[in-house]
Amino acid sequence: MTLAGRVVVELVESQVLRGNPLGDPHVRQIPVYLPPGYDSGETRYPVIYWLHGFTGIGLSAINANPWVPSLPVCMDRVVAAGAPPAILVMADGFTKFGGSQYLNSEANGRYEDFVTTEIVSHIDRGYRTLAAPAHRGVNGKSSGGYGALVLAMRHPEIFGAVASHSGDMLFEACYMPDFWKFCNIVSKHGGVEGFLRAFLAMPKKTEDAMTAVNIAAMAMAYSPNSARPPFFFDLPFDPHTGEIDGVVWDRWLAWDPVRMASRYEDGLRTLRLIYVECGSRDQFNLHFGMRALNRRLEALGIRHEHVEFDDDHSSINYRYVESLRRLCEALAGPHGG
Amino acid sequence: MTLAGRVVVELVESQVLRGNPLGDPHVRQIPVYLPPGYDSGETRYPVIYWLHGFTGIGLSAINANPWVPSLPVCMDRVVAAGAPPAILVMADGFTKFGGSQYLNSEANGRYEDFVTTEIVSHIDRGYRTLAAPAHRGVNGKSSGGYGALVLAMRHPEIFGAVASHSGDMLFEACYMPDFWKFCNIVSKHGGVEGFLRAFLAMPKKTEDAMTAVNIAAMAMAYSPNSARPPFFFDLPFDPHTGEIDGVVWDRWLAWDPVRMASRYEDGLRTLRLIYVECGSRDQFNLHFGMRALNRRLEALGIRHEHVEFDDDHSSINYRYVESLRRLCEALAGPHGG
Amino acid sequence: MTLAGRVVVELVESQVLRGNPLGDPHVRQIPVYLPPGYDSGETRYPVIYWLHGFTGIGLSAINANPWVPSLPVCMDRVVAAGAPPAILVMADGFTKFGGSQYLNSEANGRYEDFVTTEIVSHIDRGYRTLAAPAHRGVNGKSSGGYGALVLAMRHPEIFGAVASHSGDMLFEACYMPDFWKFCNIVSKHGGVEGFLRAFLAMPKKTEDAMTAVNIAAMAMAYSPNSARPPFFFDLPFDPHTGEIDGVVWDRWLAWDPVRMASRYEDGLRTLRLIYVECGSRDQFNLHFGMRALNRRLEALGIRHEHVEFDDDHSSINYRYVESLRRLCEALAGPHGG
Amino acid sequence: MTLAGRVVVELVESQVLRGNPLGDPHVRQIPVYLPPGYDSGETRYPVIYWLHGFTGIGLSAINANPWVPSLPVCMDRVVAAGAPPAILVMADGFTKFGGSQYLNSEANGRYEDFVTTEIVSHIDRGYRTLAAPAHRGVNGKSSGGYGALVLAMRHPEIFGAVASHSGDMLFEACYMPDFWKFCNIVSKHGGVEGFLRAFLAMPKKTEDAMTAVNIAAMAMAYSPNSARPPFFFDLPFDPHTGEIDGVVWDRWLAWDPVRMASRYEDGLRTLRLIYVECGSRDQFNLHFGMRALNRRLEALGIRHEHVEFDDDHSSINYRYVESLRRLCEALAGPHGG
Repeated sequence: MTLAGRVVVELVESQVLRGNPLGDPHVRQIPVYLPPGYDSGETRYPVIYWLHGFTGIGLSAINANPWVPSLPVCMDRVVAAGAPPAILVMADGFTKFGGSQYLNSEANGRYEDFVTTEIVSHIDRGYRTLAAPAHRGVNGKSSGGYGALVLAMRHPEIFGAVASHSGDMLFEACYMPDFWKFCNIVSKHGGVEGFLRAFLAMPKKTEDAMTAVNIAAMAMAYSPNSARPPFFFDLPFDPHTGEIDGVVWDRWLAWDPVRMASRYEDGLRTLRLIYVECGSRDQFNLHFGMRALNRRLEALGIRHEHVEFDDDHSSINYRYVESLRRLCEALAGPHGG
Repeated sequence: MTLAGRVVVELVESQVLRGNPLGDPHVRQIPVYLPPGYDSGETRYPVIYWLHGFTGIGLSAINANPWVPSLPVCMDRVVAAGAPPAILVMADGFTKFGGSQYLNSEANGRYEDFVTTEIVSHIDRGYRTLAAPAHRGVNGKSSGGYGALVLAMRHPEIFGAVASHSGDMLFEACYMPDFWKFCNIVSKHGGVEGFLRAFLAMPKKTEDAMTAVNIAAMAMAYSPNSARPPFFFDLPFDPHTGEIDGVVWDRWLAWDPVRMASRYEDGLRTLRLIYVECGSRDQFNLHFGMRALNRRLEALGIRHEHVEFDDDHSSINYRYVESLRRLCEALAGPHGG
Repeated sequence: MTLAGRVVVELVESQVLRGNPLGDPHVRQIPVYLPPGYDSGETRYPVIYWLHGFTGIGLSAINANPWVPSLPVCMDRVVAAGAPPAILVMADGFTKFGGSQYLNSEANGRYEDFVTTEIVSHIDRGYRTLAAPAHRGVNGKSSGGYGALVLAMRHPEIFGAVASHSGDMLFEACYMPDFWKFCNIVSKHGGVEGFLRAFLAMPKKTEDAMTAVNIAAMAMAYSPNSARPPFFFDLPFDPHTGEIDGVVWDRWLAWDPVRMASRYEDGLRTLRLIYVECGSRDQFNLHFGMRALNRRLEALGIRHEHVEFDDDHSSINYRYVESLRRLCEALAGPHGG
Repeated sequence: MTLAGRVVVELVESQVLRGNPLGDPHVRQIPVYLPPGYDSGETRYPVIYWLHGFTGIGLSAINANPWVPSLPVCMDRVVAAGAPPAILVMADGFTKFGGSQYLNSEANGRYEDFVTTEIVSHIDRGYRTLAAPAHRGVNGKSSGGYGALVLAMRHPEIFGAVASHSGDMLFEACYMPDFWKFCNIVSKHGGVEGFLRAFLAMPKKTEDAMTAVNIAAMAMAYSPNSARPPFFFDLPFDPHTGEIDGVVWDRWLAWDPVRMASRYEDGLRTLRLIYVECGSRDQFNLHFGMRALNRRLEALGIRHEHVEFDDDHSSINYRYVESLRRLCEALAGPHGG
């Protein structure tokens, strides 16, 4: 468990998150993995940005677990196996309701800007990076796998390669089944607002609470509404009757990577690597989304790699070496660094 | 457990089911409950038709269970409590894939016709009934609660009152979450057709198999396709990518009682009683459908009664006395019979 | 689903159950399956007694279910396949707390006597039976599989063959894991007595209630205590601390078939057939008990057949043809009847 | 999430673990929390040793989680609320099968010695501690709550106070229900040895694997057997028939804190604080064990505090402030430090 590389935890002070609506901190701890050799050389390195999943923070990616390799441990393995080394930056998109999907939102704050401008600049200023899209990749899991895809397709001026593990997509499959669970759960707290206030006060977030807050957080990301205090979002369904609100639901679908692909095909075509994978028993039905995305990319003639493996959504860190290796190779400089 | 009334099991030979596509029997066993006093008097009685749920048959309604009252036991209780007596007929809409939703379908057979014409005629010929819509009601649970509502709104010339326990409705809430489970399950059998053949051969139908066959049976009922052998139906989704097929899905929605209400408002307005109820913890989200239906009926100004009680979808026979009592009262003849 | 044989429901009036402590009925409905040919001939037939499981009644065995064959349907299959025909009697050992384990108990009543003397006499009086142990078998599932084994080993003067499906045995494996669930559940009702009173009043018995009442019913069967009103039993554990009470637990173990085998080896040796089977994924761990019993019988040199099949404890009626066929063959008279 | 105190990760090189049977590392990473003020003063501090649960390591206690406070965060809260400050040392008792229960074992290695002699000495040498039992406490959760109690009662020469969160005890309640799950799981791997080898090779440890390995690890701790290669332990049951092996089971029970209390009452009486707590819905039935221990301690007249709170076994870090505060107060020096 001793690393060949080393980890520095950066404090990144954000301007765009200052005064965000939820009062979440605008200074974030961002761990940075420096590959073996970084300290003794002069080489510039490609950079991979890692986006954590829902309920995660930047620091989650370096937590120790004897049987679940952390991101730095995965990077060590990749480099030890001979891949060109890279810097790995573990971004942070956490909100007090679990996460921002790395989007700009009037309900949450400007997390897309935070990652694509502020964190990237901070890293390029502070480390010996190859500061160009061709050497910058983005990766993540679950909500982070979502963020990676969306940031990559929307920001070809920043990122030149993307990987996505079990990312949120095909929203009817991954979110809709939880809509009615949400309704049942919030009704025990007298409604949506009552639930969200209760959630903040819980010393321990229960499993039910996590199921419900996830849907609320998605609504904050996909259908914010600045005219609707105190939490500033619209739900894509009626919490009493469970009927879908087509107008709000369409706002969600506009953020579904399966639907976004054709809209952002120019961005996608610029990428050196598009690697998507998902377990074939994903509890959130994300393997279906990955297959649907795969089909869309094939139809558009966009080069990509799609892998489905025999596992589910949980504790699949051992899979990260697959994407990290490919990214290291795709982003390597002319001299392999 | 000894009845005050008595039960006769009728053999009803159907013309419309003869040669049905699934090769299911065209002769069905239909239990008939005759109220206390039937044998010793000359009175004519109203008739309530009971529609069983998915995987049920007509005989299921008279099965003995020390803690779950059968339909005859429920009727006995209702009559003992002073309600005007009625005959209760336990219809049968079973198919080898679990049930027909009491609709006419090119995949299953003509079950709507079977119930509304053949069974009703058979009973009116064989028993001292008040053979008019004003004295004929329909009731059921789950898929039978669905059938009751749909047959009542489509056949005001047959039925004059309806009750529905936990009936299928708001299809996105009650069916859609199982679409992706279906995909996972059938993929283990090499696809939809492989699954359906395997299903027929299973000496015991597993829980997974029941989840999957339910969706297939709904497709046979809601989106049959005579051009698609061997099982003659379209799925409202792609079983590989899980993407919704909007055209087929719209065919399903056309059969959703929540959507049908306005289309059949004339039929609904003729009914002397519309009683709908659902447990507030229904595992299939049917309490949401009931609330949505309630709202539609309110908007249409159609008189009805909507009850939500604290229980779920399973073993709720004790609730049937609520609907049976109301039906007995609504259907009673001028002399209370 | 039409039978080749036919079913008569006998009303058996018990003397030994009259005035039983729980106030359960002393007249029971006992279905009797008469094989094809019974009505047109003069032959005398062997008799198989079937003992239902916990929460069952005699009538449960004839309930209709399109996918779970009833006992008469199973017997039809066995006879149709060429086995010597037999009469099948579906006994009743129900109590208001779910079941008696077919034992005599100061808490429940004298169910062992009811079956072995009263029901057997009633049948031998009323039907053309071969009224001797060599032609009388006993069979059952779960609690009924328990009862079959125990009645057979204790009553070689009555029964000459036994089969047991997934019978209760190796009590530490099948009951003990539920002791602490019991404690948790009853504590919500203010204790054991409060729970049992609440249980009787529940319009629907919840899953938790069934888990808890099962343990109480076992205590009524295995460790009754006439000095302990109102329910007259001792628990083998402290319901507050969950500690095992060794003295009471030993009373239970004295009724464990695995432990009884050596004590009743003389009875067991007289049996023409001992057939025991269990699914290898039994939710109540009964496959372990069956293996332990198998080992004991082997050590005692008692001839028997032990089968383990790939299924669990639920809806395994399709397995009954295995035991019924063997019993029909073992019990057949000199002329194969 | 910025700490008032700070954390140093010590590398402790063990002599007693060198060459341990499982080949686990003999150098362990031990995080040490130094309270606010430590760096700027000369004061000596009491020390609390924290023992992690099964599958944990020393570093687990400092992992970041936005909603589950780490041990350093809990200590910060305790100190901020005015309790006398203490050093908190996060010990490590991990093995490749999940954990050692902090005992000396021929199957695992000498973890009791490692904690009570080597780690304690290392800390007393390296930090300004109050190096006497009166100022040394031990605490932990789950397997660590077990270890805390056992080490405290066996080592009054080392520890002067103990707290235990949801510790393993009343072994029949907390372990026995999993014995038969173990048998089912290992049988899929061809037996115990096959399972353990497969476990080591799994890139991800499944839930089933964790259930089974837990029982194996307990056997390595409670019933090691140096004569039984390759894993050197006896099981307290027959993995085929599920029958309990009374001799081995008695070896387990000898390590049950409920049974140990009277044997170690002298040690227990020396402690300044015995604080035990458990959630009233503990999934492993540990609230029963805590109640049983409470009753034993009461019977022995040993002063202690027993708390039961409304929660289960998972993510209950927010409870740790209760025990840490009490320990800080009990262990404080004459001048409150």
